[in-house]
Amino acid sequence: MKNIKRYLSALLMTALLPGISSAQQSPLTQYVKPLIGTAKMGHTFPGATVPFGAVQLSPDTDTIPYAVNGKYTGDVYKYCAGYQYDDPTIVGFSHTHFSGTGHSDLGDILVMPTQGELQLNPGTADHPETGYRSLYSHDNEIAEPNYYSVQLDDHQIKAELTTTTRVGMHRYTYPASDQSHLVLDLNAGIYNYDGKNVWTVVRVLNDSTLTGYRQTNGWARTRVVYFAIKTSKPFKNYGAEYLDKNVQYRGFWRKFDQTDNFPDLAAHNIRMHLDFDTEEGEQIMMKVAISPVSMSNALENMEIEAPHWDFDAVVAQGKKAWENELSRYTVDMLNKEDLINFYTSVYHANLMPTVYMDVNGQYKGIDYEVHEAEGFVNYTSFSLWDTFRAFHPWLNLVDPKRNSDMVSSMMAHHDQSVLNMLPIWSHYGNENWCMSGYHSVSVVVDAILKGSYKGDAEAALEACVQTANARRYEGIGEYIDLGYVPDDVNSTSVSNTLEYAYDDWCIAQLAKKLGKEDIAAEFTKRAGNWKNLFDPSIGFMRPKDSEGNFREEFDVLETHGQGFIEGNTWNYSLYVPHQPEQLMEALGGQSGLETYLDSLFTMHLPDKYFANTEDITREGIIGNYVHGNEPSHHVAYLYNLTTSPWKTQERLREIIRHQYNNGPAGLGGNDDCGQMSAWYLFTSLGFYPVAPGDTDYWLGSPLVKSAEVQLQNGKTLKIKALNQSEKNVYVSRVRWNGQDIEGFKISHDDIIQGGELEFVMSSKPKTK
Amino acid sequence: MKNIKRYLSALLMTALLPGISSAQQSPLTQYVKPLIGTAKMGHTFPGATVPFGAVQLSPDTDTIPYAVNGKYTGDVYKYCAGYQYDDPTIVGFSHTHFSGTGHSDLGDILVMPTQGELQLNPGTADHPETGYRSLYSHDNEIAEPNYYSVQLDDHQIKAELTTTTRVGMHRYTYPASDQSHLVLDLNAGIYNYDGKNVWTVVRVLNDSTLTGYRQTNGWARTRVVYFAIKTSKPFKNYGAEYLDKNVQYRGFWRKFDQTDNFPDLAAHNIRMHLDFDTEEGEQIMMKVAISPVSMSNALENMEIEAPHWDFDAVVAQGKKAWENELSRYTVDMLNKEDLINFYTSVYHANLMPTVYMDVNGQYKGIDYEVHEAEGFVNYTSFSLWDTFRAFHPWLNLVDPKRNSDMVSSMMAHHDQSVLNMLPIWSHYGNENWCMSGYHSVSVVVDAILKGSYKGDAEAALEACVQTANARRYEGIGEYIDLGYVPDDVNSTSVSNTLEYAYDDWCIAQLAKKLGKEDIAAEFTKRAGNWKNLFDPSIGFMRPKDSEGNFREEFDVLETHGQGFIEGNTWNYSLYVPHQPEQLMEALGGQSGLETYLDSLFTMHLPDKYFANTEDITREGIIGNYVHGNEPSHHVAYLYNLTTSPWKTQERLREIIRHQYNNGPAGLGGNDDCGQMSAWYLFTSLGFYPVAPGDTDYWLGSPLVKSAEVQLQNGKTLKIKALNQSEKNVYVSRVRWNGQDIEGFKISHDDIIQGGELEFVMSSKPKTK
Repeated sequence: MKNIKRYLSALLMTALLPGISSAQQSPLTQYVKPLIGTAKMGHTFPGATVPFGAVQLSPDTDTIPYAVNGKYTGDVYKYCAGYQYDDPTIVGFSHTHFSGTGHSDLGDILVMPTQGELQLNPGTADHPETGYRSLYSHDNEIAEPNYYSVQLDDHQIKAELTTTTRVGMHRYTYPASDQSHLVLDLNAGIYNYDGKNVWTVVRVLNDSTLTGYRQTNGWARTRVVYFAIKTSKPFKNYGAEYLDKNVQYRGFWRKFDQTDNFPDLAAHNIRMHLDFDTEEGEQIMMKVAISPVSMSNALENMEIEAPHWDFDAVVAQGKKAWENELSRYTVDMLNKEDLINFYTSVYHANLMPTVYMDVNGQYKGIDYEVHEAEGFVNYTSFSLWDTFRAFHPWLNLVDPKRNSDMVSSMMAHHDQSVLNMLPIWSHYGNENWCMSGYHSVSVVVDAILKGSYKGDAEAALEACVQTANARRYEGIGEYIDLGYVPDDVNSTSVSNTLEYAYDDWCIAQLAKKLGKEDIAAEFTKRAGNWKNLFDPSIGFMRPKDSEGNFREEFDVLETHGQGFIEGNTWNYSLYVPHQPEQLMEALGGQSGLETYLDSLFTMHLPDKYFANTEDITREGIIGNYVHGNEPSHHVAYLYNLTTSPWKTQERLREIIRHQYNNGPAGLGGNDDCGQMSAWYLFTSLGFYPVAPGDTDYWLGSPLVKSAEVQLQNGKTLKIKALNQSEKNVYVSRVRWNGQDIEGFKISHDDIIQGGELEFVMSSKPKTK
Repeated sequence: MKNIKRYLSALLMTALLPGISSAQQSPLTQYVKPLIGTAKMGHTFPGATVPFGAVQLSPDTDTIPYAVNGKYTGDVYKYCAGYQYDDPTIVGFSHTHFSGTGHSDLGDILVMPTQGELQLNPGTADHPETGYRSLYSHDNEIAEPNYYSVQLDDHQIKAELTTTTRVGMHRYTYPASDQSHLVLDLNAGIYNYDGKNVWTVVRVLNDSTLTGYRQTNGWARTRVVYFAIKTSKPFKNYGAEYLDKNVQYRGFWRKFDQTDNFPDLAAHNIRMHLDFDTEEGEQIMMKVAISPVSMSNALENMEIEAPHWDFDAVVAQGKKAWENELSRYTVDMLNKEDLINFYTSVYHANLMPTVYMDVNGQYKGIDYEVHEAEGFVNYTSFSLWDTFRAFHPWLNLVDPKRNSDMVSSMMAHHDQSVLNMLPIWSHYGNENWCMSGYHSVSVVVDAILKGSYKGDAEAALEACVQTANARRYEGIGEYIDLGYVPDDVNSTSVSNTLEYAYDDWCIAQLAKKLGKEDIAAEFTKRAGNWKNLFDPSIGFMRPKDSEGNFREEFDVLETHGQGFIEGNTWNYSLYVPHQPEQLMEALGGQSGLETYLDSLFTMHLPDKYFANTEDITREGIIGNYVHGNEPSHHVAYLYNLTTSPWKTQERLREIIRHQYNNGPAGLGGNDDCGQMSAWYLFTSLGFYPVAPGDTDYWLGSPLVKSAEVQLQNGKTLKIKALNQSEKNVYVSRVRWNGQDIEGFKISHDDIIQGGELEFVMSSKPKTK
């Protein structure tokens, strides 16, 4: 009934207010559709969380690729977020999820309410009756900021989820049964495999409280998640299954039957069940708090954040937090779908990195020690290869305080690292070394140069230099010696060389600002290393061996095995964001660059090449331009260098229209921890940070009709797009506070003083 | 050379001073022979340690039973202490060892100095050249309190070891070599098996410092030992071997060669090597600190306890600590062998339990949380089935402050336990549930009633009652319901029933003292439960099923499978220390008891029964009296109840002469964490705590000629045995401060007031 009412009211609103449906209404949370990106490659999760919350309480439809007759039917990384929209069953609700990643881990503390004969095995998607999982229907599913609800058909149980920063709260409405259960599967995990669970501990403190921890060896090598669990009703009975029997019977612990109401459990893999009698419609609630430090900290997190059982109050509190984030932006857009894309992008760009410290400030560092974050909020899960591009710059614009805390978190990571490196891809006090480059350097430098990070800049520079000089990592030693990463040393030698060169340029910018001339000179030289891999004979970047010979067999369309990661040389050869004019010269000047870009966007990429791209759908590609992966995110802006900037404007609108929509498959590739969404947000306002570390933004073509952004310094940035329409994608004039802008850039320093950026839109390109 | 000098000087002393060799000379440490008990079943370790030190740095000759052609040649528990005197090779020197246990664990952080081609595998005892282990000779071995030295023949390296409480210090004298190594085998462990090592972490902080931890799943289910290591000379190179390759190559850590000079390691099983160039005779030192809490605590332990590299000073400091312990006692004995037995017993009774907290007071509790010991030293490794009998009572006499701290440690364990139980056999923040009874109850009660423990007695009583009412443990529920543990419920039903009944009696004594009449009544009733298993038809304790039927097939000589643990019913039927008169009545009064005891000591135990006794040598048995195990430790004193107390006196001297000598095989059974030694100490002074919880001691026959014991309250206890000789084993008169003692008891309250206990010895029994 409730669902139908919601549907009707939404319908009514759309029907009655067609003319102004494009301007936002309160509450803004109505425009956030967490289901966007949950089908195919978006890898977002639909469940409940608060902005940057440590808990992401969300349904898992499977945690490893679905196998039919032992044969995997999908991408090995299909379940990065645990949920795939097209799946028929829900396995349970776990408490930790990445948003939009292309690799996976997490899925801690999976809870499933069941009813009837106890089943401790999850069963399979094609035979859900063989386990505790359940069929469900999207008709009975609601996904909103900090609220998720679904009817579990096999168990006739309604599940509702909400969270605080560190606590997941569950409300399950049962039928009448003397066999109602809460299954607690501590074996489950996203991207699980035999041996991933290193050790698990559970203590049952009383008839409604459990604590414990689980240590895994997955993407994170040594990850420990502590937890505390309370139920609103005492369980009448509980039990455990040790999946590795040898541990159960080891030593003199065999004196106990550890399966039946035994409160002191420890093994590699444990599944538990809590049993209840329920009356028709009886609600049982559960709170699960997590901590990176200890069970007592998890209990304290629960006591501080969610001392009560008022589920609706927790929902409301989280929605308010979301409304606060969303209400930084007042936008008028062409239609409601755009409003939904805009605010859902804000939502997706407010999920990661996540808070990684307890209410008392403690967290476990990469040095395995317990630290206290002093003067900052400590964050984890830095997907830096993705997020240095637009996500962190977006925070420098709209939430510099938070980005400063993230830089502080990265500096703490560096200071604790025995390798003396800033994070590459770090999560939960671990480094997982995913992807190429050392892009924390870009984030640190951009945050300092844009004034967000006010910590010790010299220490930050030293951390950047140490990271860039980590000779053992990914060919850096050879890169320093030869000026490029040799093909015979590293399988992604070109990606690394290009990205190192950009990062080195960032270091040089910071060194200059701090008056460190020798460092500036050294890294300015390194910033030009991209030239060493540019092969003028073919006009592309190309792998080169230690002897200085370009690789002979080389496929310019292929992504795999050619020296690149998540991109072919057609895309990657444009990755010189810091020296675009020099790159343009290499590509034949303005006309050469324009021709290159025209070809990129219009050529046909044969299917066989698509098969080897990663993390994107077929729709994530325009010609051979791959928007679903990150290396080309700046590419459409490069037309600004040519005599045809109108092609930037045209392509940006095309990318937005092709790559972002309201459906579950609305993202053409992994959202990548908010990077895809941050690109959308910048671009829809009309500008973009082509080379973070450079404080200038490049102008594009806005999507909004108008927008106001409340800056943290109290100033307001207004965007106005006169004559905005679906057809008027071209910009005929741009003014900043009434003054025409010369060229195609506007500086961060200007923008954060507040003011109005006015675009005059037109249906005709301005060709000059 | 040095050894020969030592030998000659000892010889000289013996030769020149034959008449007074039986009175102790300074330093007393000369009488301590750590090698006593290292052959066969003593299970003591010969290495370096300080009194109750957390580190026991000692050679391991093997860590699992030696297999020839894959077939084990020895007892599965042969290597409880890591060292067996008769073994030809030393594998390495590890930092944690139990003393005299019958089960095993520990052996953490095994270090082996080697030279020549690097070998990371230990090799086998019959082919030591296949690994890093080395042949050695006892001729080149010195074992003294806090100093151990041996020549490693295969490597031409002299090894020397010493310790502080939490730090092991190594000094290795190398030959000239450009291939000198320190092998750090973090896979090694005592009683190891596949899967025991759950997780291992190593961080190489610089060219002479490492930190890390290892988590094991052994006898202790979830044990974590953190460590910090420094070398006196920088290593020129280092490396690691992951024994499980899949972890090395998992995730993107495969980007690194983790075997070669890589400082950030984590896997299930790791072996490492530190490499050096050495000149002839060059000494390389190493310090290894441990912590139950963190690597930073381990570093702090090292900085506080051993900030320098003065090896000899550390030796001297530890020897001084030993001298302090030994010098509580001034004894005059019949010969030097007895002096050695006496002071080595003091030594063995000052090893365990061990300090379990860092210099900052932190330790990890059984609740997996970090605690701070407030107002007491926290101890671990409580082998309570053994040590409640004489070891803890001995501390109540000579070191009540330390016993109080041990009770505080046990109370902390209880308070942290989710099972609300006092320890059964606990080590390193774990319960391992070994052996029968709940004898911490006895230790707690005895310490309170003798005035050692001045903590909250009511809380202690409650902890005792909770432990005694843990219905799920070892048949306690049925014991409460039926008055005995049924044979069909528990395989050691008789041992448990008898021991529970004694422990219950202890609880009743404390309850009486605290005026808790209802508890006193309840547990006084339970104290008589031993009667429920006494079968008058055969005159022995006998297993009974839940229906109340005695087991039909029953072998009174067999130890295994008859309802007992480490004892047959001949020995165990006497286990009613708290109601000996009632037991005597059951056995037929004074004459019945005397006949029973005479038979026990003189009967022939066929070899087939010996095969199933545990933890003792054939010599550990007199007739069918088993001294090498604990249940009969009070038995010889029971003749005091009969009309022939002289048989107590005779048997005690016989036991001492048969069961304790100066050789490596000088202990007839496991020393059991000081219990065998504490029995020796009490008995050699002439009295014994037959039923701890009763503040009376039973008199025996002293071995000393005279003794003075410095009590902690400043008083002195003097023992005088007039006419003491090898033949004069009978006591004709006993006086306390000049007054004849009526009966055969003397109270603890009297003794700790100080005074003189005078025995008049005779060659003839006093028969009256």
